[in-house]
Amino acid sequence: MNHFVTMKDKTEAEILQLIRKANEMTKQGIQPLNKQYFAANLFFEPSTRTKMSFVVAERKLGIEPLDFVSDFSSVIKGESIYDTARTFESIGANLIVLRHQEENIAKQLAESLSIPVINAGDGTGEHPTQSLLDLVTIYQDFQQFKGLKVVIAGDIKHSRVARSNAIALSTLGCEVYLTGMEAWHDETLGLPYITMDEAVECADVLMLLRIQHERHQNQMALQQASYLEQYGLTIERERRMKEHAIILHPAPVNRGVEIDSSLVECARSRIFKQMENGVAARMAVIETLLNKGGYSNEKSFKKRKAHIG
Amino acid sequence: MNHFVTMKDKTEAEILQLIRKANEMTKQGIQPLNKQYFAANLFFEPSTRTKMSFVVAERKLGIEPLDFVSDFSSVIKGESIYDTARTFESIGANLIVLRHQEENIAKQLAESLSIPVINAGDGTGEHPTQSLLDLVTIYQDFQQFKGLKVVIAGDIKHSRVARSNAIALSTLGCEVYLTGMEAWHDETLGLPYITMDEAVECADVLMLLRIQHERHQNQMALQQASYLEQYGLTIERERRMKEHAIILHPAPVNRGVEIDSSLVECARSRIFKQMENGVAARMAVIETLLNKGGYSNEKSFKKRKAHIG
Amino acid sequence: MNHFVTMKDKTEAEILQLIRKANEMTKQGIQPLNKQYFAANLFFEPSTRTKMSFVVAERKLGIEPLDFVSDFSSVIKGESIYDTARTFESIGANLIVLRHQEENIAKQLAESLSIPVINAGDGTGEHPTQSLLDLVTIYQDFQQFKGLKVVIAGDIKHSRVARSNAIALSTLGCEVYLTGMEAWHDETLGLPYITMDEAVECADVLMLLRIQHERHQNQMALQQASYLEQYGLTIERERRMKEHAIILHPAPVNRGVEIDSSLVECARSRIFKQMENGVAARMAVIETLLNKGGYSNEKSFKKRKAHIG
Repeated sequence: MNHFVTMKDKTEAEILQLIRKANEMTKQGIQPLNKQYFAANLFFEPSTRTKMSFVVAERKLGIEPLDFVSDFSSVIKGESIYDTARTFESIGANLIVLRHQEENIAKQLAESLSIPVINAGDGTGEHPTQSLLDLVTIYQDFQQFKGLKVVIAGDIKHSRVARSNAIALSTLGCEVYLTGMEAWHDETLGLPYITMDEAVECADVLMLLRIQHERHQNQMALQQASYLEQYGLTIERERRMKEHAIILHPAPVNRGVEIDSSLVECARSRIFKQMENGVAARMAVIETLLNKGGYSNEKSFKKRKAHIG
Repeated sequence: MNHFVTMKDKTEAEILQLIRKANEMTKQGIQPLNKQYFAANLFFEPSTRTKMSFVVAERKLGIEPLDFVSDFSSVIKGESIYDTARTFESIGANLIVLRHQEENIAKQLAESLSIPVINAGDGTGEHPTQSLLDLVTIYQDFQQFKGLKVVIAGDIKHSRVARSNAIALSTLGCEVYLTGMEAWHDETLGLPYITMDEAVECADVLMLLRIQHERHQNQMALQQASYLEQYGLTIERERRMKEHAIILHPAPVNRGVEIDSSLVECARSRIFKQMENGVAARMAVIETLLNKGGYSNEKSFKKRKAHIG
Repeated sequence: MNHFVTMKDKTEAEILQLIRKANEMTKQGIQPLNKQYFAANLFFEPSTRTKMSFVVAERKLGIEPLDFVSDFSSVIKGESIYDTARTFESIGANLIVLRHQEENIAKQLAESLSIPVINAGDGTGEHPTQSLLDLVTIYQDFQQFKGLKVVIAGDIKHSRVARSNAIALSTLGCEVYLTGMEAWHDETLGLPYITMDEAVECADVLMLLRIQHERHQNQMALQQASYLEQYGLTIERERRMKEHAIILHPAPVNRGVEIDSSLVECARSRIFKQMENGVAARMAVIETLLNKGGYSNEKSFKKRKAHIG
């Protein structure tokens, strides 16, 4: 594994190895890496939790985070992402963590840099570390994936984590179902749609998605109470879930919209556990990428492909 | 001491212990704490000096600061403070430092989290670490507090540090007086008002407050020269102060408004000394909170109270 | 050397010593300094690459960076630069790195603080660490400076790095030429102007400058294609350069304006090498400043001159 930009190119064995490594990372005392590494955290979209999760993961491994803030930087001078990333590589970054509005940008960057690139969310593309932390959380409850019924609920169409999860869960042998408003269906995933009432009764894992208010400013979806009743997890629906079933949500939660506020920390909710696992998941990915190739800055001028342009 | 959000619940002995510990912190070589801690510095109001002071205090103790910038984060996605703080707790924060526009928010948060919360300024409520650094500075000059005459001068009504100091200085046995424009009097403190001319002659400690320009945009107070003459510390008034008397100001100073610019670094000014002591005061508070309970992230899911709502 | 704010007061021997030290820094494993230092990075203008370069240099030396963001700070409360810098000094900064819009501000600050000040760009004044990294890059190719023909090309008038380089290269015994649009000539430098076509044929080192779009919003210079043809480095001109000649550019590059995009990473381009050397150059300057005087915060209240005002 040279980069971590998509779940599409990962085998079942590779995913399971990352899950197990992440699960170990949650338990034991962590040994910092034995040399000084720098990670460039290039976040072109706001994100408290993902960015902070990466920073904590990096610091636990002893890595120095380089904090890039896109609205206070030379991006206002018209620099391309490629030139920005190459700059960080040149000044010593051993790793790029990229969040960007544009789909596929992490993949393109990975092809033109010789240091590892981690996709921390690319437009409506993928968000593979968020998927990995969901998988770690499921693994902790069920110890395996074969035949597990997982329902992904909400705005499938605009959700990068839904895409990464749909791919990874299928690779791992889960039965994956989707549910949500018809306007948000994404037929390209090739997965069956069910109703929310069917979902709560069949799911071992109910994966709620966040409504991206910032992407749907004028929609009826924002008539919150009615959204919760029709598509969200109400107190009444939660009662109908299987005894062992768990609830996931990538957070931040819109309390009272995707889920009743009182359920956010209920017994079957893994929402804050997911955040805790997120640090371990990112540590597992970073450690795998940095230890594998013995990446160092000296190598960074070799075998460069043509730049993005 | 589980949290540090107010001076109201502190005994004389507790305050003195913190002062002495902080005073020691200014002298000796500091030993970093013996494990990796993370501090979430949640600043919802701009503050160079308080935030940087906390960061230096944290780094001297070997603590990793997590920097939260409120206008570049998921607060724009409508998250509550509680959910933000719980997120930081979940990803590994062992400590929350909170500055916020709203009074009492630190206290509420402290009641719903199981990691320590430090109030770094809550609206017009309190600012107890700023008070502590003032107390350390007084202690260095006078070695005790009983019977010391302390005058707090300026916009008492809107000053959170005035409130914390009024409480703490009274607890320590000082004679506390207030002075300032009548519109800025705060009768709830139950302390006597005197004139600035009386103040300079009786004070052992003259504690100037900063005029919060950002809170009083259209007032006559901003007719600066006349404000200095009527209510501020002019060169002439400074000459009438007792020989051993000292001047404090929380800074940033409005030069020529609260105090004549040439007095900012005069012999009896402790203004930059206060900043130096601020780092030690914060170290003393943090060290006390973290060492007491053996706080660690593993414990953080226990004994949680209901969330703020 | 107590500060590093200009190339004007540096002797040939001093500059060569810094160049050699920086060149060593690029090679060997770096030993962090043996005590905890804090560096206040005060950037009042946006800058990804210079700021990050300083942060990496600081971290490689084991120094703690204090990150100051000017639009989220008490500068909005009307503080002067002097008071801001003194605040950082008081809370423990051992070093100030200053970027500011105003010429000469770093020099003024250096005269009123007792900790070292590094000028990271002051208006259209100087940018001496950028100059130093250019010199290191030239040194790596030519091992000496006497008689080298260096052409600085572009917006001489508004370029602080052009000024620092014109001074330093002359001190080192280079033959320095200038080229560019007549409107951007700066006669105060006392150096000869040639055409771009002459430049590419005579130069050992062709130093391109960045067009400051942000300073020239409405000019014809921005008719990009014609600018490249008339004043920039086209593919055709690059072919006429001497075999051993190298190309420098401070970056970020306006691809297709100052230089044809395909030449940015050509064999004679040192553009990304310059960034790599920038970290070493800053390490050399910082290490020289901190090790010399045994600077520490305890000394910082001595021998203070009057403040800027």
